[in-house]
Amino acid sequence: MTDNPLESLIKRLSRLPGLGPRSARRAALHLLKNKETTMLPLAEELDHVARTIKTCVECGNLDLTDKCRICYDSRRDATRICVVEDVADLWAMERAGIFSGVYHVLGGTLSALDGRGPKELGIERLVARAANIEEGEVILATSATVDGQTTAHYIGERLERDGMAITRLAHGVPVGGELNYLDDGTLTQAMKARRPL
Amino acid sequence: MTDNPLESLIKRLSRLPGLGPRSARRAALHLLKNKETTMLPLAEELDHVARTIKTCVECGNLDLTDKCRICYDSRRDATRICVVEDVADLWAMERAGIFSGVYHVLGGTLSALDGRGPKELGIERLVARAANIEEGEVILATSATVDGQTTAHYIGERLERDGMAITRLAHGVPVGGELNYLDDGTLTQAMKARRPL
Repeated sequence: MTDNPLESLIKRLSRLPGLGPRSARRAALHLLKNKETTMLPLAEELDHVARTIKTCVECGNLDLTDKCRICYDSRRDATRICVVEDVADLWAMERAGIFSGVYHVLGGTLSALDGRGPKELGIERLVARAANIEEGEVILATSATVDGQTTAHYIGERLERDGMAITRLAHGVPVGGELNYLDDGTLTQAMKARRPL
Repeated sequence: MTDNPLESLIKRLSRLPGLGPRSARRAALHLLKNKETTMLPLAEELDHVARTIKTCVECGNLDLTDKCRICYDSRRDATRICVVEDVADLWAMERAGIFSGVYHVLGGTLSALDGRGPKELGIERLVARAANIEEGEVILATSATVDGQTTAHYIGERLERDGMAITRLAHGVPVGGELNYLDDGTLTQAMKARRPL
């Protein structure tokens, strides 16, 4: 019947991952009910972040400087590079607090179909970084999918040499995982890679 | 280990209804990967809408003018007022395309605990609107909850008079509803209000 003047905003919100039309409507109304405290600050911050966030020239992480804080941090072990597919994976590793080396964010996996070759994934840059390390390790932390592992293998072959250890995250039963809920693939991998107790 | 410069933005996004920390992270990264096409336009639109949207002085709807397009529309039947709790309910009614009268948005239900009395819900304004209607109808479309119905009854008693019909939406089995999935409350209402076939 009558047009909704918030139609355009709601459509934009509904395209965000995690939001559909219904939750976009709720979000829009929530924002409008809190214009000063929520809506305007959010608009301001989105604009500010969009204009100030940079992609690290060294590793592909997101930060406010050309080289990210991880690459700048001299306390980090620059001889160990953890290769991840996405910035979200880097954040996950950082949240876990288990790695004190540096990263390399590929921005995806090798995919001829999607036009993602070594160049698009910054693999040449990774090769150059690795060449500067006399003795070190490259940890392949791509996803446990066919594409992720294919990409890992390709990178491993490019970088393997005396002095450069190539490792990969273990695949198997996730912590807390009950076997009867797992898929065949995961069980297969867990069995194949079994280790002495 | 290292701070996430997007922490603040992600926190803001996670407070939106429908988004949690995980989807807020995904949304933030999605926006950053599409700064020009998605992030900056969204920031612009949020800011623009926040600064231009008004609450209709007549009915409480949201629009760009002091009086909303529904209240302005002379083709609408101003002798019939549909009372709803929230703008979202008004939108739902308009999407269904089943009502050609005007609305009154309460902004909630009567609740002494939450400090919502007749004044906060604009009920005095509704009483004034109804007084200007010689012969008409007030349709109570508050939610089918205890608070919603209590509020409806209060309004009905305030507005009831010769020439002003007070009606309420039917409560019962939702369309497509299978009885064995319904709760006792709904079944009870549906039985109590049964009608001749």
